[in-house]
Amino acid sequence: MSATFMSREIAEIPQAAARLLAAGEATRIAQALSPETIPFVVLCGRGSSGHAGVALRYLIETRLGLPVSASAPSVVTGYARPPRVKGALFVVVSQSGRSPDLVAATQAARAGGALTLALVNDPDSPAARASDLVLPILAGPERAVAATKTVTNSMIAGAALVAAWAGDRDLVDGLAVLPERLDRALALDWSAWGADLESAPAAFVTGRGHGLGTVREIALKLAETLRLPALGYSAAELRHGPRASVSAGTPVLALRQADAVADGIDDLVRDLRRDGLRVQACGGPAGTLPWLGDGHPACDPIAMLVPAYRAIEAEARRRGLDPDAPAGLTKVTETL
Amino acid sequence: MSATFMSREIAEIPQAAARLLAAGEATRIAQALSPETIPFVVLCGRGSSGHAGVALRYLIETRLGLPVSASAPSVVTGYARPPRVKGALFVVVSQSGRSPDLVAATQAARAGGALTLALVNDPDSPAARASDLVLPILAGPERAVAATKTVTNSMIAGAALVAAWAGDRDLVDGLAVLPERLDRALALDWSAWGADLESAPAAFVTGRGHGLGTVREIALKLAETLRLPALGYSAAELRHGPRASVSAGTPVLALRQADAVADGIDDLVRDLRRDGLRVQACGGPAGTLPWLGDGHPACDPIAMLVPAYRAIEAEARRRGLDPDAPAGLTKVTETL
Repeated sequence: MSATFMSREIAEIPQAAARLLAAGEATRIAQALSPETIPFVVLCGRGSSGHAGVALRYLIETRLGLPVSASAPSVVTGYARPPRVKGALFVVVSQSGRSPDLVAATQAARAGGALTLALVNDPDSPAARASDLVLPILAGPERAVAATKTVTNSMIAGAALVAAWAGDRDLVDGLAVLPERLDRALALDWSAWGADLESAPAAFVTGRGHGLGTVREIALKLAETLRLPALGYSAAELRHGPRASVSAGTPVLALRQADAVADGIDDLVRDLRRDGLRVQACGGPAGTLPWLGDGHPACDPIAMLVPAYRAIEAEARRRGLDPDAPAGLTKVTETL
Repeated sequence: MSATFMSREIAEIPQAAARLLAAGEATRIAQALSPETIPFVVLCGRGSSGHAGVALRYLIETRLGLPVSASAPSVVTGYARPPRVKGALFVVVSQSGRSPDLVAATQAARAGGALTLALVNDPDSPAARASDLVLPILAGPERAVAATKTVTNSMIAGAALVAAWAGDRDLVDGLAVLPERLDRALALDWSAWGADLESAPAAFVTGRGHGLGTVREIALKLAETLRLPALGYSAAELRHGPRASVSAGTPVLALRQADAVADGIDDLVRDLRRDGLRVQACGGPAGTLPWLGDGHPACDPIAMLVPAYRAIEAEARRRGLDPDAPAGLTKVTETL
């Protein structure tokens, strides 16, 4: 069997990241922004792009001190009552840049006086044309329906934007070594987790803070590529109500970056294992999956996507599923 | 077997709603608020209270035009970088009012110059004491770990606040008849959905807009009370990636209120059924579950909780589970 588009596009993640960072577009955009005059940020995206937005949210709030609202497109396109966003920064994240409801929400935000920025792979897409500013993610053409390199590059573009905007040297340095870490991450073998998924009726993914976007993204990729009901919870949520639905038959993947929320993730992993549950962990003292060692805590969750994507793609092929074209899904989401 | 606390507390939902609305506290709070001077609203809550926040978010955005940010407590308690919220309205929703991280987030918001409002069942709780304003939800003591009447009253308190604040007569009228509709909802028999859940490895709940808080709440209650991995997706999300994880063995519950997003839910139900999937629907032409007929679209999703809660409680007893004290869960969430 020839390589799937999904596997080839995962392999392109390091070079796509390097190309994006070398282009320096995020620095150019950051020069047009001032955290002092912007009261808040609205992020608009769905699915994988929404998960890039979750990652961006933690960076904007912690590095720039700006509250972030995740846009509910139905408020604009369904109820036709766009909220007041005058002076705010509205960021639309969309791989295709063609989802009609996201384009409509962007147009409404711009008409309402927001500064609009599109993080898109196609700088000539409708979402880009509807925006004041465009940050192309430069991932190159993506042919698998299951997005991979466009997700990592969306997250990297957002991180590069915040690094330049906030003047965060640590984050700049973390991003500078990220392509090389992504390349090494391609060699990590998470098939132990893939084996756990083989007979599972459902699966859980957990993490917190800078890792939450990756948590949600891996859960979605399990759903769309392996047809597996998969739940991505923050470690704080999973500890409470949803905990009751985790059983010995439903594997948990715990992602742990080295930052202020790490202890909470370590505690959760320990408690779940004490209760006899099956937890594969990446990072920290509880880690069972191969990892690179700690890097920048906002960059590590992006690199964790690489072995997770590879394990999911391999498990899809093993099951006879087509990872490039999951049943019933199309590349452009066309919700109105 | 004597009645469970959960079943008794579900039966108290109509009278708790009537008590809350008669007290008129929301009107008093609304007089202290001005949408013109408040730039945005931050909502802070977790689990069931977070779902009340989701419902409140759609009302605030559509009725008051104010963008809403759902607070990420780890930004404050983990990363110690509270975002700038000067002048904003910060609403903490918490049944117990005792979760340490929500109290800390409220204190940080108040110190940062936000006007803080607590929607709590205990007006003497730490979250209430940390807040400028307190809107007691007056649900009375709740002894089941699985929250029910505090959830409906949190949603009703939020709706009453927006109705008074926005001067929305339709919503005032919808709330006025809600206790009577909640009472009639107690008689609705959703055991057909409960039967679908019997052998299911996972379950889905969907809806959109004003119904999304209820969607997420039912999914959580399935997880904590029936130990069932349960996914609550907006109809717009479920149509895309997660669709691939729905199978003939995983029942879907679709909730449909009569408003501008109803057509999208009807279309999704039709498409899922065409693909041979099992969908129980409440409301509209595709409805299979008993319903009251259309009422106010922001109130109907609250009333839909009643038959859903009853079906879940009955199914828990049938399985020999204790709906009052799900394994491993406690009433006050103590995340730091």
